Amino acid sequence: MTVPNFELELEVRDYELDFQGIVNNAVYLNYLEYARHKYLDTRGLNFVQLHQQGVDLVVSRNEIDYKSSLRAGDRFVVCVSTERVGHVRLVFHQQILRLPERTLCIKAKVTGVALRNGRPMPINELPAI
Amino acid sequence: MTVPNFELELEVRDYELDFQGIVNNAVYLNYLEYARHKYLDTRGLNFVQLHQQGVDLVVSRNEIDYKSSLRAGDRFVVCVSTERVGHVRLVFHQQILRLPERTLCIKAKVTGVALRNGRPMPINELPAI
Amino acid sequence: MTVPNFELELEVRDYELDFQGIVNNAVYLNYLEYARHKYLDTRGLNFVQLHQQGVDLVVSRNEIDYKSSLRAGDRFVVCVSTERVGHVRLVFHQQILRLPERTLCIKAKVTGVALRNGRPMPINELPAI
Amino acid sequence: MTVPNFELELEVRDYELDFQGIVNNAVYLNYLEYARHKYLDTRGLNFVQLHQQGVDLVVSRNEIDYKSSLRAGDRFVVCVSTERVGHVRLVFHQQILRLPERTLCIKAKVTGVALRNGRPMPINELPAI
Repeated sequence: MTVPNFELELEVRDYELDFQGIVNNAVYLNYLEYARHKYLDTRGLNFVQLHQQGVDLVVSRNEIDYKSSLRAGDRFVVCVSTERVGHVRLVFHQQILRLPERTLCIKAKVTGVALRNGRPMPINELPAI
Repeated sequence: MTVPNFELELEVRDYELDFQGIVNNAVYLNYLEYARHKYLDTRGLNFVQLHQQGVDLVVSRNEIDYKSSLRAGDRFVVCVSTERVGHVRLVFHQQILRLPERTLCIKAKVTGVALRNGRPMPINELPAI
Repeated sequence: MTVPNFELELEVRDYELDFQGIVNNAVYLNYLEYARHKYLDTRGLNFVQLHQQGVDLVVSRNEIDYKSSLRAGDRFVVCVSTERVGHVRLVFHQQILRLPERTLCIKAKVTGVALRNGRPMPINELPAI
Repeated sequence: MTVPNFELELEVRDYELDFQGIVNNAVYLNYLEYARHKYLDTRGLNFVQLHQQGVDLVVSRNEIDYKSSLRAGDRFVVCVSTERVGHVRLVFHQQILRLPERTLCIKAKVTGVALRNGRPMPINELPAI
């Protein structure tokens, strides 16, 4: 990943830990999604408003490498870069880095598609990304 | 995926839906994990008991294809097959199929490793899988 | 609580445990809600369909006593009884009982109101409860 | 509630919304818990460290009034005040206020007890609260 377009700083909350004392593997997807939505917001794309207009951005594929676990109280950044693939797919390259050392915890490639009334629509018909 | 080793039948709960009225992408990882734990239980491997003995089974990689969304009230099965890869990795091939037609909703390849006191241990030192 | 109108049998899933190895206090609200929705379904009231018709059933007050914790693998039943209070409130008396002894884990009184386009509506304008 | 001891500012994340487009009733308990843990942290009480020493702080009762719903993108503060009741109970008076108007969304009274190796212990044996 080169320079990310966007970074969001967050903190682990105790209720996100599982019985092993580490952040559960599904919770990282929440972190990744939250950062994507915040990033797209900065580009004028709001998920909830789009939904109300009949456009849903949905995940079609997730590839997640878990490199190191986050634990209670850890602070981290979620990085987001985007890449268009063809006409209908938008790929998010994301990382989660533990602070303060920026240790790589998660490396993710998330593929999204836009659906208008349930059918794929060209990404370039969305407002500028 | 050939014949799965294990199937678990579940139902979507309303609190698992997001504002789009579909099951959120992170929730499927909960379904997949729950089915893996239930399957390993049938093979004598209990996650919580293993944790208490200093052994943690953790996910090192998730590849998830989202083919079709689950919605309110949908019933579905989560299928599990396993494959050993090398000495320290256990790969779970999983599918989520909507009932009654067994429509493919999720196709997943989940790679797990066993850690003893934080370090990778050979899979064959676990009880029979 | 006298004889409940409805009982739903469930099982703790490992991802619902927190770092203390017990079900997190917020997760019980999911169990309670799921049982209420399943119960109302049997009475012809479907939350998602009502929402699509502009009617939302929302919780206005929760009183929850935590008597005993659920742990990994526990099976339990969620009991539901209902009581109308005035014209606009529906009170659910609920219990969570650990199986097989039916040990009391949770005692709850949940007050719901129906909103039509955001405003309280009389409960008796809903289909029979 | 008079002047709170502690305030934590947070923001609704899209994955916390349910199909009604509002924050689900269980999610507020996560917000409330997170604020309690952050507050106790400032007083030298860390939940995870206490757990590792055999002391668990658990919720014995929750009373939650839902006054107004939080929606997508809302910012809010979670307020915390504490009161000791008898020797073994610590009561948290909490509010969730939507910004910027500080509109009351949630009013909560959360009763906690400390357990040492599973048995109630006097609150005053904890470090200063």
